[in-house]
Amino acid sequence: MDFLQNNLIYAVPALGLIGIIVMMFKSAWVSKQDAGDANMQELAGYIADGAMAFLKAEWRVLSIFVVFTAALLAYSGTITEINGVPMHSSWIISISFIIGAVFSATAGYIGMKAATKANVRTTQAARTSLKQALKVSFTGGTVMGLGVAGLAVLGLGGLFIVFLSYFNVIGTDGTVSVLNMKTAIEVLTGFSLGAESIALFARVGGGIYTKAADVGADLVGKVEAGIPEDDVRNPATIADNVGDNVGDVAGMGADLFGSYVATILATMVLGQEITVTDKFGGMSPILLPMVICGLGILFSIIGTWFVTIKDEKSNVQNALNLGNWSSIVITAIASFFIVKWMLPETLSLRGYAFSSINVFYAIIVGLVVGTIMSIVTEYFTAMGKGPVNSIIQQSSTGHATNIIAGLSVGMKSTVIPILVLAGGIMASYHFAGLYGVAIAAAGMMATTAMQLAIDAFGPIADNAGGIAEMSQLPPEVRERTDNLDAVGNTTAATGKGFAIASAALTSLALFAAFVGIAGITAIDIYKAPVLAGLFVGGMIPFIFSALCIQAVGKAAMDMVQEVRRQFREIPGIMEYKAKPEYEKCVAISTKASIREMMMPGAIALITPIIIGFTFGPEVLGGLLAGVTVTGVLMGIFQSNAGGAWDNAKKSFEQGVMINGEMFYKKSEPHKASVTGDTVGDPFKDTSGPSMNILIKLMSIVSLVIAPYIAVKAVTNEHKQEIRKEIRIQQKTDGSGNTIIDTLTNTTDTLTH
Amino acid sequence: MDFLQNNLIYAVPALGLIGIIVMMFKSAWVSKQDAGDANMQELAGYIADGAMAFLKAEWRVLSIFVVFTAALLAYSGTITEINGVPMHSSWIISISFIIGAVFSATAGYIGMKAATKANVRTTQAARTSLKQALKVSFTGGTVMGLGVAGLAVLGLGGLFIVFLSYFNVIGTDGTVSVLNMKTAIEVLTGFSLGAESIALFARVGGGIYTKAADVGADLVGKVEAGIPEDDVRNPATIADNVGDNVGDVAGMGADLFGSYVATILATMVLGQEITVTDKFGGMSPILLPMVICGLGILFSIIGTWFVTIKDEKSNVQNALNLGNWSSIVITAIASFFIVKWMLPETLSLRGYAFSSINVFYAIIVGLVVGTIMSIVTEYFTAMGKGPVNSIIQQSSTGHATNIIAGLSVGMKSTVIPILVLAGGIMASYHFAGLYGVAIAAAGMMATTAMQLAIDAFGPIADNAGGIAEMSQLPPEVRERTDNLDAVGNTTAATGKGFAIASAALTSLALFAAFVGIAGITAIDIYKAPVLAGLFVGGMIPFIFSALCIQAVGKAAMDMVQEVRRQFREIPGIMEYKAKPEYEKCVAISTKASIREMMMPGAIALITPIIIGFTFGPEVLGGLLAGVTVTGVLMGIFQSNAGGAWDNAKKSFEQGVMINGEMFYKKSEPHKASVTGDTVGDPFKDTSGPSMNILIKLMSIVSLVIAPYIAVKAVTNEHKQEIRKEIRIQQKTDGSGNTIIDTLTNTTDTLTH
Repeated sequence: MDFLQNNLIYAVPALGLIGIIVMMFKSAWVSKQDAGDANMQELAGYIADGAMAFLKAEWRVLSIFVVFTAALLAYSGTITEINGVPMHSSWIISISFIIGAVFSATAGYIGMKAATKANVRTTQAARTSLKQALKVSFTGGTVMGLGVAGLAVLGLGGLFIVFLSYFNVIGTDGTVSVLNMKTAIEVLTGFSLGAESIALFARVGGGIYTKAADVGADLVGKVEAGIPEDDVRNPATIADNVGDNVGDVAGMGADLFGSYVATILATMVLGQEITVTDKFGGMSPILLPMVICGLGILFSIIGTWFVTIKDEKSNVQNALNLGNWSSIVITAIASFFIVKWMLPETLSLRGYAFSSINVFYAIIVGLVVGTIMSIVTEYFTAMGKGPVNSIIQQSSTGHATNIIAGLSVGMKSTVIPILVLAGGIMASYHFAGLYGVAIAAAGMMATTAMQLAIDAFGPIADNAGGIAEMSQLPPEVRERTDNLDAVGNTTAATGKGFAIASAALTSLALFAAFVGIAGITAIDIYKAPVLAGLFVGGMIPFIFSALCIQAVGKAAMDMVQEVRRQFREIPGIMEYKAKPEYEKCVAISTKASIREMMMPGAIALITPIIIGFTFGPEVLGGLLAGVTVTGVLMGIFQSNAGGAWDNAKKSFEQGVMINGEMFYKKSEPHKASVTGDTVGDPFKDTSGPSMNILIKLMSIVSLVIAPYIAVKAVTNEHKQEIRKEIRIQQKTDGSGNTIIDTLTNTTDTLTH
Repeated sequence: MDFLQNNLIYAVPALGLIGIIVMMFKSAWVSKQDAGDANMQELAGYIADGAMAFLKAEWRVLSIFVVFTAALLAYSGTITEINGVPMHSSWIISISFIIGAVFSATAGYIGMKAATKANVRTTQAARTSLKQALKVSFTGGTVMGLGVAGLAVLGLGGLFIVFLSYFNVIGTDGTVSVLNMKTAIEVLTGFSLGAESIALFARVGGGIYTKAADVGADLVGKVEAGIPEDDVRNPATIADNVGDNVGDVAGMGADLFGSYVATILATMVLGQEITVTDKFGGMSPILLPMVICGLGILFSIIGTWFVTIKDEKSNVQNALNLGNWSSIVITAIASFFIVKWMLPETLSLRGYAFSSINVFYAIIVGLVVGTIMSIVTEYFTAMGKGPVNSIIQQSSTGHATNIIAGLSVGMKSTVIPILVLAGGIMASYHFAGLYGVAIAAAGMMATTAMQLAIDAFGPIADNAGGIAEMSQLPPEVRERTDNLDAVGNTTAATGKGFAIASAALTSLALFAAFVGIAGITAIDIYKAPVLAGLFVGGMIPFIFSALCIQAVGKAAMDMVQEVRRQFREIPGIMEYKAKPEYEKCVAISTKASIREMMMPGAIALITPIIIGFTFGPEVLGGLLAGVTVTGVLMGIFQSNAGGAWDNAKKSFEQGVMINGEMFYKKSEPHKASVTGDTVGDPFKDTSGPSMNILIKLMSIVSLVIAPYIAVKAVTNEHKQEIRKEIRIQQKTDGSGNTIIDTLTNTTDTLTH
């Protein structure tokens, strides 16, 4: 125990490394599996190539952005004082930023590579058994999960060790320099900014990509040319399949990578403010989130052992649930002992005192919030449940009533998640103050590796089915992939719930961290400018959503024109005599997605900078609160409405009963449900999930600029604060005269 | 001048009375006009009877609600102390509440009566000339406008005089008792609560009514039976026409009556906190909003003189604009002199000092905010402008893209209004502190009489057209009513923008007033419970909207079944041999609307009470901020999306160009646009406008309960506040020891 105690800090990157090593083994195992016949391999090759083409194009733009931002950060790091107030950053923050970006991009690359390998191998495995097909597809997902979590923990933990040494945080006598620790952690925020910037490109760009391809492929292929979905004659079909990987695998991965890193970091920022005497040189509150998340990787690996089935009749969903719950329960139990071991009996943050056991309770709150939000999301989007049924029923009276029903379901689905979130905020704060809010988020994110494995399993199974369809394999193969795909739809829904919950809690943790660094003690919306900030912040998710939705429309139109051109100019496509130019469609989706994400991305990045430097940290705090509240609401609303429309449409495939009559595909109500599904596509895969990125990115940008705008706070706000105190003193204290004199002098000193 | 100075307080109700007298003359003039032939009169009779049937049913439910709430208020007024803190209310607040409810209901009754008289007389006038038709329809609208504004000013001003005397506010020596003034104004809030409660029934219930009838009539009539809109054979057609009056006239009237009263009151609440020496016994900041709004009635009457045209070729819109602008400009100029005359050179509210000229600037800010919001609303919903054109273009690829385009337009339309609102908050606060925010709202509302006259003109013209259609009058008549109707659509859009702006500013004014009465000095969203309140508040507009939309769906289904039954059981309807039972459909819409508004109404009324009493005023403040921010956003989003869809559909009637091809009614793109219009119906006429009521009602309820929850603030929050001060003192003051001791004692005293 003593050895571990003295070297705990090294255990963190070691745990990340373990995750990466296990991932490599799993990745090698997937590669070794049979990739099927030449035809299957060719199709899979197109998808893999298209996915890589997108990544490469994304990286080209990204590299310009990263270099530019890194230069800006490096410059900001050289500022040693503003108006006489000393700054504590360093140009090293730009290195930190670049590493964050590279790590996030690498995690996306690994996941995408694994997914595009696992898809065709799952199809092939499905020729043998369901058990084997599940093993291949889930292992593919595991590669993504472990890659994301492993790289995040390795990166954060490794950089932290380097910075501790570089900034001489721990003196030769073993004491910790508070100021140097501040610098080390401030520089570490660059890592989180880098990670979240990649997430912007991957999630928003990827979201536009996937739906532009999907809608474009459907509009010309299904509607105009009358060929089925996933038909090899459709030039956009490969782009469509690429989109599943780009959006659902790489996008989701980058999203959670960002949440994971930001959550740990925010907890560290708050942890450094807690002064304790412990076995770790007073660093236990800083180390705790890293240790829990590092161990979460181990527990996720243990969880994967339970994801297996006996035979064809086994329930795949149950196997995934068992794996998920095992890792969550082990994490919860382990947290208890870790908290007890690491933290001293009592702690205190910004005047709020709490005991170590309460930190454990806060972690449990995080786990509960994440779980309930996943369950609610599943309920509102699952086939056979009330909400989806209401949409089915209202499809009988036409397109309009289908849309109204879906919008209504989406709006209603916000109620419980928000109440749970609000309850979670209050409970975790009650237990352990602001540190509790942050550690709750960290607890929830601890099993990210498992969550992502289950998430990424979905699109792999979906792709496997697509390949089976395109290669015209026997029906029992399709049946097995359909089984996996159906489960994948549910996990996609719960995964989205988890992603929103994680984004919300992460933003709150960042928000808490921001206020401390920005040098303010309150965000008072009773002040007119702060209230104005709240309004403007609340509006941003609306314009961001509108831009995302519009981008899909525009990009889909580009796609439509290209597909029409190919049908016109390449004779023989429809007779299978000529091959469509798949790569042209891939290029269009790639280019459009990157072009269209510029504007929303710029809004997310630049708004906090403008508001922060113009109006100061308190107004920026109001802005962040507004963005977070409506961002979470719009995220839940759009994702769930889209998910419910999707499954309402899917329900018609097996037939549904409306007013005692059965309706199937091609019936009028089914057509109405297709309208809802198409409206829902950008909702659930573009604008909805991009809310996660929006709220996190704006918070992390604010956290990074916080030290620079904090200066304004001292010169303007602080004076006000002190004036207010004078008034209060006047009221409450009888012998107040001397006090007022003293304080007036203080004010004067500050004015000059 | 001296006489006026000494009796200014009596001038206020006198101005209201002048408005009512002018209204009576105008109403009598409308009644005297020719009501056309027997057939027209019969149809108009059905509409008038249906409208009255709704009002009566509404009043029945309302009277139960009013009696119950009045009893509760009367009881609360008898509480003299809570935990030793004295209360200053009185049971008289229940009387104030009842009068508010009765006045608002009366205003609705007068407006509805005038509108249902003016519609058929406009049709008849259109047989002669456009000039005469405009005169009749606009005069009908003027009756509504003057009725609302006149009764509001008479009620508020009259009650204020009564309460000044009843509560002995002004002593025999002419000095004003601050405490008694507090009581008088607190009791006056009951008037506002009464008015806003009626608005809930009228706007939300009316909104459900009008769209249930509309959608129900269309689904069976147009779709199933294949008969045109406004066809006398459709049993639901009268209900549909009644709906226009119920929703657009009575609903809008009650909405603005509520805003008008609440705005004046909120300014008075803040005004009583300003201590000044003036010519009005220190009451000038309290009297100012009443005087400006009272004079606004006069200026609105002057404005109506300009609403006239020369001949058939004159531009009706220009005439309305001239009237509107005259009244606004005169109000602005007059405000300058009134402010200069009434207010002392400098004033100060809660430590914020400002000069009297700045109060004038704040009023101008209010006028500018209202104007810009109207213009933006018009731009986003007008035919021929970019937003509506984008929906038309995207209708060519089907129902789904039409919906996506409309949703995107609605979301984008929030940007400028929110920026304007945020700028307005900051500017008006900058000029005159919180009093500035409130007086800006009052300035904007001053010309309510004119705004409402223009608003109510729309549905009157719409109805006139319907009657012309049903009575098969000559084409030139229909042409003239169409001309008026087209202008009416624009004024409906700008009117909605004005209503949202007024609701937003009113809520902010109430919010400012609430904080003072609740005994708190800040709403700090950095405190976890307050942030939780913000989230929950933000969610409420979503569930409220969902319930409203769902209510329309349910009620429309009831209507569909009744219409089907009549077609089945009453032979000869389709051959004009039998008359449909119009009153049955009217009854269904009436019953359904009142039933379905219960749940959303209960949410609006009860949530602030539960949150306020459980968590105290600061959390309630967070809740209110959340409701206001997302409420305004959802209101703008839904109203504008709905308006844009409506006009995209209407554009097809004249034919539209898409990709070089012309499309007309019955084309595929037109069918897609009909889907959008149907989705937009509950958006723009039910859930969107009901956001206004939601945010105002929750604010006014909070204001009324504020004194009772303020007690909690002292015992819990205040202690925290003082503890915080101790810490700050410790930091800033070197000789802090004695202070801490003194304050610790104070804290102890408060604890026991």
